[in-house]
Amino acid sequence: MKEIWHEISIKSPPGTIYQALTQADKLAQWWIPDTRGESKPGNILEFRFGDGCQLMRVSALEPDRLVCWQPTEEDDSDWAGTQVQFTVLPVDGRSTVQFRHSGFRGDAERYPYYSMSWAVFLLSLKQLVEDGEGFPFPNRWIHQ
Amino acid sequence: MKEIWHEISIKSPPGTIYQALTQADKLAQWWIPDTRGESKPGNILEFRFGDGCQLMRVSALEPDRLVCWQPTEEDDSDWAGTQVQFTVLPVDGRSTVQFRHSGFRGDAERYPYYSMSWAVFLLSLKQLVEDGEGFPFPNRWIHQ
Repeated sequence: MKEIWHEISIKSPPGTIYQALTQADKLAQWWIPDTRGESKPGNILEFRFGDGCQLMRVSALEPDRLVCWQPTEEDDSDWAGTQVQFTVLPVDGRSTVQFRHSGFRGDAERYPYYSMSWAVFLLSLKQLVEDGEGFPFPNRWIHQ
Repeated sequence: MKEIWHEISIKSPPGTIYQALTQADKLAQWWIPDTRGESKPGNILEFRFGDGCQLMRVSALEPDRLVCWQPTEEDDSDWAGTQVQFTVLPVDGRSTVQFRHSGFRGDAERYPYYSMSWAVFLLSLKQLVEDGEGFPFPNRWIHQ
């Protein structure tokens, strides 16, 4: 199994980052502009892009600390069976976000593209939280 | 063993990217500003930053296609025993760069930081090649 594992430092308290990871209108500003749903354990979030829609079940939440998603059972993409986890830790007056997307099959062809894409969106999250404006999908770094 | 594996699309022919991966003055513009050495198989490149210096032996080169580095035998950092590989492939009139940094020990604490950092520098490489200006170390995304 392969795992994407990135870490980023963000000049903001954990609570602000947790909001950006859980509120649909905030997720829309750093990841997928058409995001729908309410982050509660067991709920499904919808991330709609072009003709596609990524459904994510909220599998775990700990306020200001942890957000976990899992693609729904119907998922037949490379993401089927994977898990996404954001852990937010206070460090020296700012926060560190540990991001893990685990459970990729060893032969998942687009793994290195996903790895790069998640890094770009974590930078977008950082810019949204620090400066008030992210660069959600699509942006100049990917999909062009 | 852990491996960082990113992929990025760059609007440029492979030859231009290969130059940016091999010429010290170009490496300085997207990765470490004080870069010294000449890229020839077996040669050592010096990447100097602050009080530190990362030495990389050029372990393989294929013009316009492949660049491989290995930290030198004296390396006692998390990078000891690792390998860095850039593969440049022409795709539909642009290029895809496959970046792999492999051989990390399973307990390499800073692995997720390196994963994020390499992504940032690959974006810097993309911007240098496409627009003429990168964002080498240090920059707003890391080390601040």
